[in-house]
Amino acid sequence: MRIHADFSSPEARMDFVIHLAKQNIKHQTGGPFAAAVFDMDSHRLISVGVNMVVPSNCSSNHAEMIALMFAQQTLHTFTLNSEGLPRCELVSSCEPCAMCFGAIPWAGIQHLTCGATAEDAKAIGFDEGPRHPNWITELEKRDISVSTEINREQASAVLQLYKNDKGPIYNG
Amino acid sequence: MRIHADFSSPEARMDFVIHLAKQNIKHQTGGPFAAAVFDMDSHRLISVGVNMVVPSNCSSNHAEMIALMFAQQTLHTFTLNSEGLPRCELVSSCEPCAMCFGAIPWAGIQHLTCGATAEDAKAIGFDEGPRHPNWITELEKRDISVSTEINREQASAVLQLYKNDKGPIYNG
Repeated sequence: MRIHADFSSPEARMDFVIHLAKQNIKHQTGGPFAAAVFDMDSHRLISVGVNMVVPSNCSSNHAEMIALMFAQQTLHTFTLNSEGLPRCELVSSCEPCAMCFGAIPWAGIQHLTCGATAEDAKAIGFDEGPRHPNWITELEKRDISVSTEINREQASAVLQLYKNDKGPIYNG
Repeated sequence: MRIHADFSSPEARMDFVIHLAKQNIKHQTGGPFAAAVFDMDSHRLISVGVNMVVPSNCSSNHAEMIALMFAQQTLHTFTLNSEGLPRCELVSSCEPCAMCFGAIPWAGIQHLTCGATAEDAKAIGFDEGPRHPNWITELEKRDISVSTEINREQASAVLQLYKNDKGPIYNG
């Protein structure tokens, strides 16, 4: 795939992430989830991640965790809100589970953009885990703003595609 | 250090984990936290982890995450409660943060043993993040039992040692 450079709209960024999730299904390299970190000002792509739980034998290898880890490795920092660094956005094809939600404040991103909802994930048998009941408010309290349901229909269609392909529903 | 094999009491397992946390401080290889996974029946040690956030430039490299990851790599599984595997316990020198709490149900452990409390961590400037307010009940609902304050005094003393050594309080 040629990566088109115009990531100026949240929909374009989400489209790209949805494309990654589809590739992950197609190549049978993990669950139907993908994520990416973008520079919030230039909209430059910093890192990507796809779900790798089953092929890597690692329950914490969710797309968001991998995208955040690669962003930190790329920028040589344990927190993306270090001085001198771009403000960072995490774009995820689905709302975060309890673990990824908990990882977000440590990572140093300033905005979270989600596609499919927890209900969409649940509809195909995935579980978001014991996420804080007021997860959006809790992020906002920590100066992390949140957008949900960006291209939800397309993001949710990818989950259905995975289900129809009979992809493994681990931790269901 | 010679690893003495008698891990039959929770206090002995916690002592070992506290020792690892002290080593992490002494060698300046990360924050004052350590964890280990044990076979719940034989009490055999399966894996260890120490906090590596700052030296590895990775905000998710908490001790618990690393111990769980190594246990899964050792046992070649993405969930430790796969058939044919030993029942696993995670022993952590401190109560889990929001992320590690969220990671526990995915990991497949059946018991969590904690030393220092969230208050002890907070007392030296660390933050447990937006953890679910009923985190113990939420784990119990998922058939993960929890013991807290095992050797709390010694576990908390390690945190104080780190503070006195002026170790970095990241994500404070």
